[in-house]
Amino acid sequence: MEFQEVVRRRRMVRNYDPDRPVPPEVRERILANALHAPSAGFSQGWAFLVLEEPADIARFWELSAEDPDDPWGKGLRRAPLLIIPMSCKRAYLERYAAPDKGWTDMDESRWPVPYWHIDTGFASLLMLLTAVDEGLGACFFGIPPGDRTTKVKAAFGVPDDYTPIGVVSIGYRAHDKPSPSLKRGRRPVEEVVHRGAWGRH
Amino acid sequence: MEFQEVVRRRRMVRNYDPDRPVPPEVRERILANALHAPSAGFSQGWAFLVLEEPADIARFWELSAEDPDDPWGKGLRRAPLLIIPMSCKRAYLERYAAPDKGWTDMDESRWPVPYWHIDTGFASLLMLLTAVDEGLGACFFGIPPGDRTTKVKAAFGVPDDYTPIGVVSIGYRAHDKPSPSLKRGRRPVEEVVHRGAWGRH
Repeated sequence: MEFQEVVRRRRMVRNYDPDRPVPPEVRERILANALHAPSAGFSQGWAFLVLEEPADIARFWELSAEDPDDPWGKGLRRAPLLIIPMSCKRAYLERYAAPDKGWTDMDESRWPVPYWHIDTGFASLLMLLTAVDEGLGACFFGIPPGDRTTKVKAAFGVPDDYTPIGVVSIGYRAHDKPSPSLKRGRRPVEEVVHRGAWGRH
Repeated sequence: MEFQEVVRRRRMVRNYDPDRPVPPEVRERILANALHAPSAGFSQGWAFLVLEEPADIARFWELSAEDPDDPWGKGLRRAPLLIIPMSCKRAYLERYAAPDKGWTDMDESRWPVPYWHIDTGFASLLMLLTAVDEGLGACFFGIPPGDRTTKVKAAFGVPDDYTPIGVVSIGYRAHDKPSPSLKRGRRPVEEVVHRGAWGRH
């Protein structure tokens, strides 16, 4: 598909056809594109937990859902494939302690923003876009912090120093309603784009 | 261009032809795609500072560069267009205090990771990809935190509650050397992709 068409069609899809699994070659292309995301210093401080066995997916939902009867998650639970992108701050601090970067103190305050999360976000967006390119739908949503994140990590053996930044659910689209948030409208360009200086258009 | 070709060609371009400005329609398409990035609760807590007047660009470099003679920045300084994506945490906390989300305490610990940075990162990646789709090159790099970020924000009138997550430099490509970081190699798939549970392939 043309790049611009992929950008145009991308939206969060919250309901899937439970009877159509994601073909293995599509899953692998989605993962391969995630691994081609850019990362600061080529740190690649990320990992991807792929869940597609129904028992694994059921376990994920059981441990992570706030309220199992919440209609919010009803369509999402039908996704035949979940990929949990995780970021690893340690990998970045270690990468930048190398001689060519020289931040041997591994001081986190050297970092303007947490590029481990941002880069893992890059990988996540590439997965969302690749799903569209393959004619599937996808959604990115967060795992509530605290107890539920801890339980999910423990259930799937995720090391302490990896942080799930969310979940990418993937599948063939079924009918769903657009997110009510969209009714809030897009912020006008004049409010978000500043030319030459803040407030100038 | 085909989506997959855009993903394949994307790489950080660190040198530009200083005599070829970015056509206005290309600049606007890059910005329009940034504004179509997904955001949690459609918060759109971001802003984009667009610099293309040579005096503005010179000022940015003067205030932000660690060492003006550093060969690292030599090619980047030739970029005719800089877009500084900024995230606004306040916009997210306010959005999620609305009745449909209900986090009226605006407690930051409700957030598993800083989606304000991640979403602004989504917008940044869409700019990098759109540049490739238009036959241009782009690079994403950070502004050192502390004094230099403060000076850049003051010079361009950026409000306190907006945080630059980096800079996207854009222009027509000139010859440059691949980043030395790439020599470190891509992490093997088995190290980053886990199937069903951590360490399972």
